[in-house]
Amino acid sequence: MTAPNLVVVGSVAYDSIKTPTQDEKDVLGGSATYFSIASSVLVPTGVVAVVGDDFKPQHRTLLESRNVNLDGLETATGETFRWGGVYDKHLKDRETLFTNLNVFADFQPKLPESYKNVPYVFLANIDPDLQNAVLQQCTAPKWVACDTMNFWIHGKRESLLRLLPKIDALFLNDSEAFDLTGYRSLPDAAQWIADHGTPISVIKKGEHGAIIFSKDDVYAAPALPLRNVIDPTGAGDTFAGGMVAAIARLDQVTPEALRMAASVGTCTASFCIQSFGPSALTQMNREGLNERLEMYKNLTRFPEMTL
Amino acid sequence: MTAPNLVVVGSVAYDSIKTPTQDEKDVLGGSATYFSIASSVLVPTGVVAVVGDDFKPQHRTLLESRNVNLDGLETATGETFRWGGVYDKHLKDRETLFTNLNVFADFQPKLPESYKNVPYVFLANIDPDLQNAVLQQCTAPKWVACDTMNFWIHGKRESLLRLLPKIDALFLNDSEAFDLTGYRSLPDAAQWIADHGTPISVIKKGEHGAIIFSKDDVYAAPALPLRNVIDPTGAGDTFAGGMVAAIARLDQVTPEALRMAASVGTCTASFCIQSFGPSALTQMNREGLNERLEMYKNLTRFPEMTL
Repeated sequence: MTAPNLVVVGSVAYDSIKTPTQDEKDVLGGSATYFSIASSVLVPTGVVAVVGDDFKPQHRTLLESRNVNLDGLETATGETFRWGGVYDKHLKDRETLFTNLNVFADFQPKLPESYKNVPYVFLANIDPDLQNAVLQQCTAPKWVACDTMNFWIHGKRESLLRLLPKIDALFLNDSEAFDLTGYRSLPDAAQWIADHGTPISVIKKGEHGAIIFSKDDVYAAPALPLRNVIDPTGAGDTFAGGMVAAIARLDQVTPEALRMAASVGTCTASFCIQSFGPSALTQMNREGLNERLEMYKNLTRFPEMTL
Repeated sequence: MTAPNLVVVGSVAYDSIKTPTQDEKDVLGGSATYFSIASSVLVPTGVVAVVGDDFKPQHRTLLESRNVNLDGLETATGETFRWGGVYDKHLKDRETLFTNLNVFADFQPKLPESYKNVPYVFLANIDPDLQNAVLQQCTAPKWVACDTMNFWIHGKRESLLRLLPKIDALFLNDSEAFDLTGYRSLPDAAQWIADHGTPISVIKKGEHGAIIFSKDDVYAAPALPLRNVIDPTGAGDTFAGGMVAAIARLDQVTPEALRMAASVGTCTASFCIQSFGPSALTQMNREGLNERLEMYKNLTRFPEMTL
């Protein structure tokens, strides 16, 4: 298999999801799963994660059929990480019903030899100490992005702050950005994050899209309004997968490349939410992605008109 | 004074606002106030509203200095409508502390003679029965937009449904659109609204911007991310004021005009939130608005790049 030029470190999990119309147990999920299914459409992607010995061969086959490299997927004795959540009637808010870390509790991510020279790295939302540990195993990281959440912002603040100078982009949602920085405006929060070592802030806003702050540019990428929204689980990781993969494919981090990458991320996320679990996402190909990018280009087109 | 070519029917109020940094009583507010201060930058605007005999001459002067026509502003015996609210620490959610309708309780909007031929009408968020009654007084409405909220969607559903075939655009937020239509996606909700007689849905999403659905077009207008966000009160009405005024000024309702109008609304709203109450908005002029439109054009510009 081709050595990946993008590696994601995160979770591979079984999710129990309740939406107003559906309720299923043990749906393939986890940040590394959604990320890699999305990113592998654009670049060979490797996964660093752990599953239990209950992980089904069909799910391994599914990922491999998408050209995801599983050299870094460790199998440990015990059960795979399980998460359960329930969505409100508008699919806007969700409540976590349970988080059983299982084999993930003792996860010590190890990069296989074939991943060590990888240029593009995504540290999905895990303990910043593990994110730091993974980064130390990379011999030549070119561009590193990292996701985080309130749990780490409050519980592992020092570790997260130590990470910021070592990464190139931080993915987080708006309230997390405010909690991390103490500011109440996104431009101020992004400036604080830049001052603490991370030049690019990718503010995720769920069904409202994202805003990308970099040194000389701000790009607002609203989400595509779609008819058949089935399940938002994994949309944030899918967005990141599309975005980081586009950066890796373009192999540049100019403001234009960041705009294109954010647009790609928005479009990949739009596939993710159109089925329960990752199944619609696994149907996405380059042609479908290009079609959606054309739709997206028109969605935000400023009019040719004078007031 | 010039006869207005845009009339807004709504509230003129005194607001008591608490934000994390400021707490003031009797700040000039109300939907018709914010709307008309914004819209009058583009077109002569008339206000139909009622105030009490405590309404301060300086506030009347302020509106007149902005070229707002007050022929339709009735003064009744009693106190002006008062609303009080408190914002959370991120200025995202707010709680209403009190609503004292005062003279507004018996408000029977009457269009003065000079307003009756007005082509463009905005029915701000009031009882749909009053919105219907106002519309009947218009002799030649060309384009009518209407705002509503959950209180009327649940409490006056039949009146609201009777109104839909008589208006051209409905302004409401996403959860209101879902509650009104029973759908969980914005395109489905907009289609339902179109099927019930209103061809254009303007979905307001607060700090996330707006999405405009019309027969052949969808335009996503994310909000401008700004540093100095002070007070979001009135931003929705200011957005509507900028948007409807741009339609009136362009005097066309093509998809391109709607895109421009939504962009103008977004930019006018960005002024509104930069001060406590309407004071920053009262400083907005055509030049400042044009500058912000240029900023806005770049904010969502799709990159010139191939993936």
